[in-house]
Amino acid sequence: MSNYTVPGIDQNSAKQIIDGLQERLTDYNDLHLILKHVHWNVVGANFIAVHEMIDPQIDLVRGFADEVAERISTLGGEPIGTPAGHVQDRKPLEYPKNKANTQDHLKQVNDLYTQVIEGVRESMGEAGELDSVTEDIYIAHAAELEKFQWFVRAHLDDGTGNIA
Amino acid sequence: MSNYTVPGIDQNSAKQIIDGLQERLTDYNDLHLILKHVHWNVVGANFIAVHEMIDPQIDLVRGFADEVAERISTLGGEPIGTPAGHVQDRKPLEYPKNKANTQDHLKQVNDLYTQVIEGVRESMGEAGELDSVTEDIYIAHAAELEKFQWFVRAHLDDGTGNIA
Amino acid sequence: MSNYTVPGIDQNSAKQIIDGLQERLTDYNDLHLILKHVHWNVVGANFIAVHEMIDPQIDLVRGFADEVAERISTLGGEPIGTPAGHVQDRKPLEYPKNKANTQDHLKQVNDLYTQVIEGVRESMGEAGELDSVTEDIYIAHAAELEKFQWFVRAHLDDGTGNIA
Amino acid sequence: MSNYTVPGIDQNSAKQIIDGLQERLTDYNDLHLILKHVHWNVVGANFIAVHEMIDPQIDLVRGFADEVAERISTLGGEPIGTPAGHVQDRKPLEYPKNKANTQDHLKQVNDLYTQVIEGVRESMGEAGELDSVTEDIYIAHAAELEKFQWFVRAHLDDGTGNIA
Amino acid sequence: MSNYTVPGIDQNSAKQIIDGLQERLTDYNDLHLILKHVHWNVVGANFIAVHEMIDPQIDLVRGFADEVAERISTLGGEPIGTPAGHVQDRKPLEYPKNKANTQDHLKQVNDLYTQVIEGVRESMGEAGELDSVTEDIYIAHAAELEKFQWFVRAHLDDGTGNIA
Amino acid sequence: MSNYTVPGIDQNSAKQIIDGLQERLTDYNDLHLILKHVHWNVVGANFIAVHEMIDPQIDLVRGFADEVAERISTLGGEPIGTPAGHVQDRKPLEYPKNKANTQDHLKQVNDLYTQVIEGVRESMGEAGELDSVTEDIYIAHAAELEKFQWFVRAHLDDGTGNIA
Amino acid sequence: MSNYTVPGIDQNSAKQIIDGLQERLTDYNDLHLILKHVHWNVVGANFIAVHEMIDPQIDLVRGFADEVAERISTLGGEPIGTPAGHVQDRKPLEYPKNKANTQDHLKQVNDLYTQVIEGVRESMGEAGELDSVTEDIYIAHAAELEKFQWFVRAHLDDGTGNIA
Amino acid sequence: MSNYTVPGIDQNSAKQIIDGLQERLTDYNDLHLILKHVHWNVVGANFIAVHEMIDPQIDLVRGFADEVAERISTLGGEPIGTPAGHVQDRKPLEYPKNKANTQDHLKQVNDLYTQVIEGVRESMGEAGELDSVTEDIYIAHAAELEKFQWFVRAHLDDGTGNIA
Amino acid sequence: MSNYTVPGIDQNSAKQIIDGLQERLTDYNDLHLILKHVHWNVVGANFIAVHEMIDPQIDLVRGFADEVAERISTLGGEPIGTPAGHVQDRKPLEYPKNKANTQDHLKQVNDLYTQVIEGVRESMGEAGELDSVTEDIYIAHAAELEKFQWFVRAHLDDGTGNIA
Amino acid sequence: MSNYTVPGIDQNSAKQIIDGLQERLTDYNDLHLILKHVHWNVVGANFIAVHEMIDPQIDLVRGFADEVAERISTLGGEPIGTPAGHVQDRKPLEYPKNKANTQDHLKQVNDLYTQVIEGVRESMGEAGELDSVTEDIYIAHAAELEKFQWFVRAHLDDGTGNIA
Amino acid sequence: MSNYTVPGIDQNSAKQIIDGLQERLTDYNDLHLILKHVHWNVVGANFIAVHEMIDPQIDLVRGFADEVAERISTLGGEPIGTPAGHVQDRKPLEYPKNKANTQDHLKQVNDLYTQVIEGVRESMGEAGELDSVTEDIYIAHAAELEKFQWFVRAHLDDGTGNIA
Amino acid sequence: MSNYTVPGIDQNSAKQIIDGLQERLTDYNDLHLILKHVHWNVVGANFIAVHEMIDPQIDLVRGFADEVAERISTLGGEPIGTPAGHVQDRKPLEYPKNKANTQDHLKQVNDLYTQVIEGVRESMGEAGELDSVTEDIYIAHAAELEKFQWFVRAHLDDGTGNIA
Repeated sequence: MSNYTVPGIDQNSAKQIIDGLQERLTDYNDLHLILKHVHWNVVGANFIAVHEMIDPQIDLVRGFADEVAERISTLGGEPIGTPAGHVQDRKPLEYPKNKANTQDHLKQVNDLYTQVIEGVRESMGEAGELDSVTEDIYIAHAAELEKFQWFVRAHLDDGTGNIA
Repeated sequence: MSNYTVPGIDQNSAKQIIDGLQERLTDYNDLHLILKHVHWNVVGANFIAVHEMIDPQIDLVRGFADEVAERISTLGGEPIGTPAGHVQDRKPLEYPKNKANTQDHLKQVNDLYTQVIEGVRESMGEAGELDSVTEDIYIAHAAELEKFQWFVRAHLDDGTGNIA
Repeated sequence: MSNYTVPGIDQNSAKQIIDGLQERLTDYNDLHLILKHVHWNVVGANFIAVHEMIDPQIDLVRGFADEVAERISTLGGEPIGTPAGHVQDRKPLEYPKNKANTQDHLKQVNDLYTQVIEGVRESMGEAGELDSVTEDIYIAHAAELEKFQWFVRAHLDDGTGNIA
Repeated sequence: MSNYTVPGIDQNSAKQIIDGLQERLTDYNDLHLILKHVHWNVVGANFIAVHEMIDPQIDLVRGFADEVAERISTLGGEPIGTPAGHVQDRKPLEYPKNKANTQDHLKQVNDLYTQVIEGVRESMGEAGELDSVTEDIYIAHAAELEKFQWFVRAHLDDGTGNIA
Repeated sequence: MSNYTVPGIDQNSAKQIIDGLQERLTDYNDLHLILKHVHWNVVGANFIAVHEMIDPQIDLVRGFADEVAERISTLGGEPIGTPAGHVQDRKPLEYPKNKANTQDHLKQVNDLYTQVIEGVRESMGEAGELDSVTEDIYIAHAAELEKFQWFVRAHLDDGTGNIA
Repeated sequence: MSNYTVPGIDQNSAKQIIDGLQERLTDYNDLHLILKHVHWNVVGANFIAVHEMIDPQIDLVRGFADEVAERISTLGGEPIGTPAGHVQDRKPLEYPKNKANTQDHLKQVNDLYTQVIEGVRESMGEAGELDSVTEDIYIAHAAELEKFQWFVRAHLDDGTGNIA
Repeated sequence: MSNYTVPGIDQNSAKQIIDGLQERLTDYNDLHLILKHVHWNVVGANFIAVHEMIDPQIDLVRGFADEVAERISTLGGEPIGTPAGHVQDRKPLEYPKNKANTQDHLKQVNDLYTQVIEGVRESMGEAGELDSVTEDIYIAHAAELEKFQWFVRAHLDDGTGNIA
Repeated sequence: MSNYTVPGIDQNSAKQIIDGLQERLTDYNDLHLILKHVHWNVVGANFIAVHEMIDPQIDLVRGFADEVAERISTLGGEPIGTPAGHVQDRKPLEYPKNKANTQDHLKQVNDLYTQVIEGVRESMGEAGELDSVTEDIYIAHAAELEKFQWFVRAHLDDGTGNIA
Repeated sequence: MSNYTVPGIDQNSAKQIIDGLQERLTDYNDLHLILKHVHWNVVGANFIAVHEMIDPQIDLVRGFADEVAERISTLGGEPIGTPAGHVQDRKPLEYPKNKANTQDHLKQVNDLYTQVIEGVRESMGEAGELDSVTEDIYIAHAAELEKFQWFVRAHLDDGTGNIA
Repeated sequence: MSNYTVPGIDQNSAKQIIDGLQERLTDYNDLHLILKHVHWNVVGANFIAVHEMIDPQIDLVRGFADEVAERISTLGGEPIGTPAGHVQDRKPLEYPKNKANTQDHLKQVNDLYTQVIEGVRESMGEAGELDSVTEDIYIAHAAELEKFQWFVRAHLDDGTGNIA
Repeated sequence: MSNYTVPGIDQNSAKQIIDGLQERLTDYNDLHLILKHVHWNVVGANFIAVHEMIDPQIDLVRGFADEVAERISTLGGEPIGTPAGHVQDRKPLEYPKNKANTQDHLKQVNDLYTQVIEGVRESMGEAGELDSVTEDIYIAHAAELEKFQWFVRAHLDDGTGNIA
Repeated sequence: MSNYTVPGIDQNSAKQIIDGLQERLTDYNDLHLILKHVHWNVVGANFIAVHEMIDPQIDLVRGFADEVAERISTLGGEPIGTPAGHVQDRKPLEYPKNKANTQDHLKQVNDLYTQVIEGVRESMGEAGELDSVTEDIYIAHAAELEKFQWFVRAHLDDGTGNIA
């Protein structure tokens, strides 16, 4: 930690917020790598539509990673984003499929999003008591991730609101 | 309701949030229809300035309708936006004027905005306890609607802060 | 009616043209509301492609509503576009589906377009004898609506030119 | 006249169409000069709104002049657009006001538009029997000129559809 | 033919309109190929000006081909645009020159345009009685083709309206 | 004249500057009409290059007219730009050619530019002693007009610096 | 105060929110003046990089001033932004340096940002209980100001997280 | 003062030019603050048109402040633009109105512009003998400020060239 | 052949390179015609996604045709792109399907691409020994054509890397 | 491996090319993660210049990863880009620094680039004998990576061509 | 010299102005070559900031060369810009450094700018008596060159206005 | 030479590649100066077309100079681009014409291009064995230079492929 942090936030709170942000950074870095992996390996009669749907989401998630990392720096921390670093202390997000058709990939991506969003909402709750700025970043991220999950789920919905 | 909703939100909360969003969707659909109606029927020496002031606001309100409807879908609900549907369960927003001069229309629009904004602020209060993402959508909408109401009121203000 | 209309067109003709334009305005307002409703409620393996195909069409139809309404004003009439107003004197366009898969929605939209286009072609025939400018507006609208109906039908065609 | 004209149109018809186009060219050249004159001389509490409303219309009218002149060339004629030439055979459009307030100018412009539009509709009628392409140019011009006249009249309308 | 066509048009009329559109499609495909051929083979002191004048016209003609083909699909037909298909039933448009100077090419292009425009005007006449939308497409095409022919002829005109 | 003018300039000087500006306004209005006339009537093997060279210059000259007219208004005068008005007190700029080849037109345009530029340089000299802002406007106009005259002359130069 | 404020907010709350907004407005006006002052007076081997880093921040801060002032108007208040007015009731933000090298300026700017951000966070706390819209404006401002302070501090950090 | 200035200008002249530039800088900083203040506080039936007319002028004046300040730096001086600094040695420009209708504000702004323009023209006269580059900056500023004053005055003119 | 070619390439080599380029030109002209044909005739539940995927590829292939044809001219040859010319000496590329569903069309397009790419790779091998510039053109074309073939194949792949 | 690959390339060659591409994909994924890490952790007097220099390079490297992965798919392979997958079979690129000043980071980045470029040049050599398209991708990547390494080294060069 | 020059300027004056313009053209050609040379050879910890600062200035200087050369042509002269020609009659601008660090290069560039600006100011003085248009070109060039010299000097200033 | 070069290239090879790049840099600097010279001195009936054709080519050649110079830096060399430097060791490219008509200039430019292209192709051959990246730069340059030479030659070709 630096000898400075955001004015009006004490060092202990800053440290706690940074811990949450670092977890999200690791998740987002894993997530954008996986989404590109899906983008390359998806096949089937709906190929082009799904292939193209994923790319703008990757840009968003990469922007989220940048935003939480720069918030860490702003709070006086050191964001860790190296490939070795982000697998060291924890299991990276798992994604078991390589080449597969669109529906199979989207089911897997749906599960992945549930995991990532739960992490964001957890950090959002913690940040809310410490720093409105960081909380607001999480709210904006959740909004976009949840909307994309709707896109994913809409492909899987059987027309009656059920996902098999 | 679908068998899924946003991760971290339970089905009952989701249902409650959706109810508020559906009310706002209906209001926004009514509002953008009325604003276009004013855009076409306003006359008088200030015609062109007022005629043009309304159009970007219509784009915003249409965007708000889209945003709350897609939030309903994200939460697992079914947004109702059909012309029959959105008058069925309630009285549509009323707008009694057709051709009239700018000041008369703006007085009427001012009243309409008070009504619509009160609805947004009510839903905002309810959402705050259930879902920060939905609350944040309402805050952004209120900010824009309130600013436009200032534009409207500024035409009616007699220079001392009173609206006749 | 105002005490003026377009130079070279008599008041009676103007009145008659305005009646046709008001019917189209009501249809277009209903139509763009319904298309947004479909945009939000469609699901299934082709979700994203159909979801995105609808949006530019909504912009077009909203533009058509604006164009016929402003033609009414130009002819000295008062276009009625309020939510109460446009269901008062006639049944709004019906759309019975909420959440449903893409093919089911597109079948419904196909029927809706047949109904709307027939209205446009009827007004087009009437306008042709009274005012080439209004006729030309209808021709441009028909061109776009018919092209979009082809897009819709192309999803339903079994490859031999038959729609089940 | 050249020894060629548009394929499928005989020399006599071409000559007759060109006569109408030349009249419109002269009117449009007069009109865009006058509109700029108004743009510079208008004053009063609504100055900026009216001053700015006129400029895009001038661009349109200059484009109309270009379009009818190039249609004359296409038909094998020689469009006359010189300042001496376009006052030689006829009285230029008159515009008696210099500095004056917005309402006074708009009344004058309203009268001017009635005169110009009547000319366009007359040529439109003649062209309809000879050349659909030229007719279509007139229809597009009339649509824009009539819409602008509505803008002008909307400033003068007392709210009940009457222009004093 | 499909079991559907544009609402308000009967199957026989649709078939007749499609025949005209197919002829134009074939002509336009031939024409844009030839214009590119000229673009590549023209030489002489005016090379660059003529070389560059042709390219935007090719884009237009390709757009016309697209427009008539999609109108065929909209009417329930099957547009034929394959290289084998469009020479099968008729002689393709002939263009005898390869490398040659600008004036020689422009004379040849002038003749070609007379041939293509006559075809458009013929189909325009037939369509006028059956379908205003298709007629309007032809009018717009004729306007552009005739204007480009003026550009071509203006290079050949001896200054007195004669083309040697 | 108004009861106000630019701060720091007395009414007599303002009146004198306005006279010069009004002459230039009249010239510029004549000039842009004539340049369009040339744009439409020029023919010959260099048609397209010359036809296109003229259009951006017309935009410039129209901008110059606007600029001097608005300077008149700024100085408290009333710019006269009506078609009748600008031929009343003086002979409009003459342009004797209709359809003619590029070199013949450019010779004529060269003479016209000499006349117009001499007017600008005369007013520039007078303004220099009264108002640097108006002088600066003339300098900018002269720079562009003289550059365009070089373009014109470069077509006529025999390669040794002589214009036949 | 006006006889109106934002629907759902009482006059006393509105008055209290306005007081906080007026303090921020004064700070932002001082801040953007000072940042421009730094932009002009900074020198040294890192001149161009620091000179250019400041300009987009000035645009942001000017936008923040506009935003809080318009929120005051929306709430029915009268924002005070005159040069006399904003020094009357309080000491303007002090900035003791004129020409100086980049590191010296950045140290000074760092202190200034601590002061400004503390003000924003204080008002943010007060607004949170009264008006979510105003609170949200402050959160967005804090996010940007704190990020820029990181940029400033990153120049001063000795590589171990300490600022001398 | 630095030990360098613009090549070809001696230190004494540079010092004298800088003094004039510093006065203009102070005026421009005051002016853009006041124009924003008006932008926020203006009301009445012409609100939106006047509110929007002011914003681009603020951008211009801010650019003028930047330009004169950077000219001071170029000449080797130290431009003073801090809020404390620019009221220290002189009275800031006064602006007595807060909320008021458009005509009342425009009258006040008209007086303010007379004062600011007189300052510019005075510095312009002094600079003309010392440095053409600085003089040219003032000429460009005067041109824009005087044109905007015409916009302001045109709202106040009674149609006969008198401002009450 | 001209009496000139690219500096550093002898006439015999140039002739040989031109022969390869002419074959590719003919293929590309056939290919972009066929792709448009598919674009118009494809139907089925994936219509819109496939319909839109084809259009940017057509632009690319048309650009490739232009590029190889202009390379022929650069080498001193005469590119033949007329509709008659490009079927004279060889069988045009065959495409047997008209209206058909997406998967059927994509299978056919896959075969067509294999044929076209083999031609490009053959010419690439020949050019490599004669002219690096021409070789580089082929490499860039192959890269894009092969990538598009992957898009096509990805629709047909059963998820295990097999195309039925 | 799929049962298809690029036309003209045999399955064994394809497999060999894919192996090289997969190594580069892993390197590029590591590299863009590390560059972002540096972007966030760099400090010192040159902070902003270096911070900003890195971002466009990250976009390039992410584009390279996309390009080699899609080439693998085109060749019939399955690109592996998951976070777990790309550390499984080999050591990820190491980057030992977190917060540090610009020169220290740039030295480290210089070493990293030597390692990455050597990998690219090795694969380039292997690909040259098998597939010109893949080779050409590597050449373009090397060109950009080597240019960026010059940027990095230029910061470290002592002015005589030596890097300490 | 040609047998024509700018209207209102006699041949002797034109010749004299041309001589000054030719000197400036030669200087500008030398200057933009040298600035590119610096752009390529600069190194050190401030590399990227200085490297990038130079490029837009090169574009400006190349534009200045174009402007003075075209003014020569406009005045009837023949601008000499060939590499042999512009060193024939005089010593080209000298620049003794190749690879060197930023501060060393900027000192050298500072001296070079003093030399170039003195030339511009000398020609400016001579032109002022002969041709305001040419004088105005020089004023605009001096403004930009002097501003860039400030950028250069600001890197060398020790914080007290002294350049060592 | 620096103590570093591109990874995978030894110092001797680097030195040899740099020698070729330096020759090209000198040629390109000469060439863009000459092309501008032609741009200013060309006259005759085809003036504007040829004048405008040259400018984009100058931008390209300036970009080529930048590219080869930066490749030299990347390889560890010092690119020499000073006006004195690039005539010191060799004769600059000669261009004997000043004012002359288009065809005379284009003949001269044709010869110049033959000379420059031969140099590029020679360096291309040498680089091919040492460094694919440098070779690829030359190939891209040759492609553009040879295409422009075709443009030049196409003006001189008598229509049978002969240049007199």
